[in-house]
Amino acid sequence: MTYQTLSDNELTALASELERDYELLAGNRLSLDLSRGKPAPDQLALSHGLDDVINGDYVASDGTDVRNYGNLRGLPEARDLGAEILGVPATNVIAGGNSSLALMHLVVTTAMRNGLWDDDRRWVTPARVLTPVPGYDRHFTLSQRLGLEMVNIDMTEDGPDLDQAEALTAADPTIKGIWCVPKYSNPTGCTYSADVVERLARLPAIAAADDFLVLWDNAYAVHDLGPDGSELKSIFSAAGKQRTDDHVVQFASTSKITFAGAGVAFVAATETVLAALVDELQYMTIGPDKVNQLRHARFLKHRLLDHMQSHARLLAPKFDIVLDTLARELGDTGVAQWTQPTGGYFVSLDLLPGLATEVVAMAKAVGLTLTPAGATFPYGRDPQDRNVRIAPTFAGIEELKTAMHVLTLCVKLASIRQLATA
Amino acid sequence: MTYQTLSDNELTALASELERDYELLAGNRLSLDLSRGKPAPDQLALSHGLDDVINGDYVASDGTDVRNYGNLRGLPEARDLGAEILGVPATNVIAGGNSSLALMHLVVTTAMRNGLWDDDRRWVTPARVLTPVPGYDRHFTLSQRLGLEMVNIDMTEDGPDLDQAEALTAADPTIKGIWCVPKYSNPTGCTYSADVVERLARLPAIAAADDFLVLWDNAYAVHDLGPDGSELKSIFSAAGKQRTDDHVVQFASTSKITFAGAGVAFVAATETVLAALVDELQYMTIGPDKVNQLRHARFLKHRLLDHMQSHARLLAPKFDIVLDTLARELGDTGVAQWTQPTGGYFVSLDLLPGLATEVVAMAKAVGLTLTPAGATFPYGRDPQDRNVRIAPTFAGIEELKTAMHVLTLCVKLASIRQLATA
Repeated sequence: MTYQTLSDNELTALASELERDYELLAGNRLSLDLSRGKPAPDQLALSHGLDDVINGDYVASDGTDVRNYGNLRGLPEARDLGAEILGVPATNVIAGGNSSLALMHLVVTTAMRNGLWDDDRRWVTPARVLTPVPGYDRHFTLSQRLGLEMVNIDMTEDGPDLDQAEALTAADPTIKGIWCVPKYSNPTGCTYSADVVERLARLPAIAAADDFLVLWDNAYAVHDLGPDGSELKSIFSAAGKQRTDDHVVQFASTSKITFAGAGVAFVAATETVLAALVDELQYMTIGPDKVNQLRHARFLKHRLLDHMQSHARLLAPKFDIVLDTLARELGDTGVAQWTQPTGGYFVSLDLLPGLATEVVAMAKAVGLTLTPAGATFPYGRDPQDRNVRIAPTFAGIEELKTAMHVLTLCVKLASIRQLATA
Repeated sequence: MTYQTLSDNELTALASELERDYELLAGNRLSLDLSRGKPAPDQLALSHGLDDVINGDYVASDGTDVRNYGNLRGLPEARDLGAEILGVPATNVIAGGNSSLALMHLVVTTAMRNGLWDDDRRWVTPARVLTPVPGYDRHFTLSQRLGLEMVNIDMTEDGPDLDQAEALTAADPTIKGIWCVPKYSNPTGCTYSADVVERLARLPAIAAADDFLVLWDNAYAVHDLGPDGSELKSIFSAAGKQRTDDHVVQFASTSKITFAGAGVAFVAATETVLAALVDELQYMTIGPDKVNQLRHARFLKHRLLDHMQSHARLLAPKFDIVLDTLARELGDTGVAQWTQPTGGYFVSLDLLPGLATEVVAMAKAVGLTLTPAGATFPYGRDPQDRNVRIAPTFAGIEELKTAMHVLTLCVKLASIRQLATA
């Protein structure tokens, strides 16, 4: 029985019932949070061994004393770890500090200031980037801060709509790049299909701009929820064959593998691009924290996938609660659609157009914090005001159950009110 | 007997003798290095306890789970540590990653792009900075990379020549700042006098530019070689009285306290400036490595000065070797002057004009690497080609003795050759 088929009387009766439930909730003084894409404490505890692996031995595989200065590209074994995560040769990896966002900032500012290709090409404004939506807010705020205009394209179940991307990129030389979260995308959880990866690898070749970049933020590369994880085709291989590999820059980190705030981040690209990044880095730092790199390399050696399975055992039940609650409470209402990710950190929920802001506010009023409506769109503007990002990882099991009850109740109530007044 | 008083015959005889010694050295296949301002392994070993202090307890004093994301200003106890090192209130400190150079880069790029004072003031090119010389090459290369022109002023025993600094700053609105290493300056080892600190604090008030910055890189704030360390007057207090404190930004790190490559860096300024830095940082990172901050705060709590005395016990003998050798070998030659630092990491050696490049090359030819001639000046250009930076910390005792023998021999030989042809 979808809500759209209900009579006015039926809608009114259902609304009254839901309003009573909502009022009851309001009395409960809840403090719930589904806004944060953060690992939970039990996940973080999986990596306490990090602090035991140095054990007085500060010498890296190449003889480097990791305590001292230097080594802008990072330790060999840390670059090996990045290579394993990203599926590229270690020579194409720089291991950096704790933030992949900082590496993205480095790449974009280098493209603007000193160039990535040892020639005169610079991103000069007006410059624009394609932003598949819904997407990751940090990509948007970074772009905006650096003066890049954002052009939305649709996100499908197979990744960005490449028809749109190709048409825009081929026609407009001010379009300089595209932001991608190719596996378990934030927030939809989709993994780009092989065809999408192929076409993205070809995008720099058909671009009107000669300095187009595919910004490949593979934040959830090894973050399967179970044995049936998605396969992501290698864009590095695809771009190599297309000879566009100077125009693909990949990012990853251990933020959601070990400690969210104290991991190691990686950037992967061709030697031309890496050399440009190192040339920029040398004016900014004397080197990354190699002690922490050594910790990570030793701790995760030969056990990265086992370690990720331990995460999955903690996370899968939480995703089950989200998806089960959505199906049970909203499955036959006709007022919501959501994604069914097999990995990553998010579930994306689409409401009736015009309801996201209201539902987030209604939830907030009874103690449930959700990601702000619009946050998954550039400039915070969801043109249909319908997308809500659900981040179930940080909450405990009971908190999550209550939070999903609150969320689905708010969705139902807001939807019925809208339908009743339509 | 200064060389200048020797007859031509005496010079020739002495040159022959020194040339024989030099030839003998050439046969020794030495591999010595006095170029690097790095702590030695025995110094680094003083901080192995860093890896024991977490011991499963990842909760900071304010309840923060340091393993997770967030906290752009750093942990309270890490900010306390920065406050102790810099002698400022903890509320005026941001604790960051492992690199103070990265924080300097952040401050200068923020001054250029989005401003430091919540208003419209920006450093627009042409912009210039005052560089006391000899000075720290990383300040120069960072400035050059960011498009800042450098204007040299003289370094005296009491710090930068403030008559020069005041005249230039008052007259030229394109002069936007001055680089300072106020305690145990790199490379001269001088500590700025109270009068110099007072006048530097007043400099923003008399500057033609309304966005002038004193960039205060207090890298050796607690790095005394013995109990008779230099006292540095607080520029923060002085600037507060002058109401110029929005124009003083201070830097420090634990790079030469714990692990050179894996420490914690700090920036200190007024809340106006810190807020501007945080506003910039939020687009670049989700937070610093708080686990490492907690390690440092716990490890150094109540024992920072004790810890620095342990460093001093290892370093003082090395500085003694340098200064004793210089005095013994060059003391009465009249061809060299050098500084007598009571802390820090360097001794600055001035030769007869025109000899620095030659001496560095002569040393290199027999296996001793020195900091490249000119490196202590902007653009690598020492106008008199006379300054050589001696970095005695990394070498072992015996290596250092040999290296100083080689260096003084090269100085003597090069000087006599110059005098003989004059």
